[in-house]
Amino acid sequence: MQKMKELILENGTYLGSGILKVDSFINHQVDPSFMMECGEEFTRLFSFVNATRILTAEISGIAPAITTGLAMGVPVVFARKSKPITMPDQVYLTIAPSHTKGINVELIVSPEYLCKGERVLIIDDFLASGSTIMGLVRLIQAAGAKLVGIGALIEKDFEGGRALLSPLGVPIESLACITHMDAEGIILKE
Amino acid sequence: MQKMKELILENGTYLGSGILKVDSFINHQVDPSFMMECGEEFTRLFSFVNATRILTAEISGIAPAITTGLAMGVPVVFARKSKPITMPDQVYLTIAPSHTKGINVELIVSPEYLCKGERVLIIDDFLASGSTIMGLVRLIQAAGAKLVGIGALIEKDFEGGRALLSPLGVPIESLACITHMDAEGIILKE
Repeated sequence: MQKMKELILENGTYLGSGILKVDSFINHQVDPSFMMECGEEFTRLFSFVNATRILTAEISGIAPAITTGLAMGVPVVFARKSKPITMPDQVYLTIAPSHTKGINVELIVSPEYLCKGERVLIIDDFLASGSTIMGLVRLIQAAGAKLVGIGALIEKDFEGGRALLSPLGVPIESLACITHMDAEGIILKE
Repeated sequence: MQKMKELILENGTYLGSGILKVDSFINHQVDPSFMMECGEEFTRLFSFVNATRILTAEISGIAPAITTGLAMGVPVVFARKSKPITMPDQVYLTIAPSHTKGINVELIVSPEYLCKGERVLIIDDFLASGSTIMGLVRLIQAAGAKLVGIGALIEKDFEGGRALLSPLGVPIESLACITHMDAEGIILKE
């Protein structure tokens, strides 16, 4: 997606240690109309998977998941990272290491909103090592639902996430793919 | 807003201790098209305030803030509850007690995305005691920006948030207002 590539090159900042700062358009500030364009692009890319539900992880996955759900006309569930008191005692819970935070995070979904028979599309902000998305996949499997696709706003090609997720046999799409980052700059896949 | 009232009465569950469970349409699962209707309603209610920016608090404020920003055509900033490594060292930070979590939470905004001269509309999921929203107000004041309105999907009339925020002198709007909750049921303002 051309606009995502331009935003990364114009406003993304490489902070070292594999960290890309895109706070101005994804992780802290969001332009809702651009995020809607992303949702429409995911809808086009996944038009053939017949998703009945979108699953994302709080926090920064929520905006693209909502706009994709809006474009597709399907509900969105966001996995929580701490169990709210409103959740039932029995939940689907998995642990995923967070590269950017350097800690393990919990991903929790209530069985009320992720059910057997659902066709689930995962939408998240980053596809990097793939560990968060693989955590979401485990939640889908635990629920007896079917994973039908994985979409990320930005992919970091060099962190191996696609290789980890490819054996799942579903389409994996990112709106921009970074092949290399260093103090000199950011290089995107054509 | 009639549909919000219906959803609360049909799908909301009172869990005791002043806690309303609305996970099926706000706090865990979201129907994006309904959330878009909420964003359009906030846009109508705040049409005269000329907001240039929407501020919310992660996590459950993000969905209504995004759809309101989409309808209004203004950017959204979500205050973080823990400082990501992508944020600069110098930030606006305030502490707000969370009723539902029983702890104090930090609310953090980067000075990069909340600036002097901005006209800021706060959108959040709940207006209860008002402490989270008052925390967002302090961040706006610290940035030298101007608060122009406060919108919440659901107001709990009996927790005093409106009384706390009214002296700020800006319009306060909620899409449904609960006047009483107990094991017998939920009573909404007409």
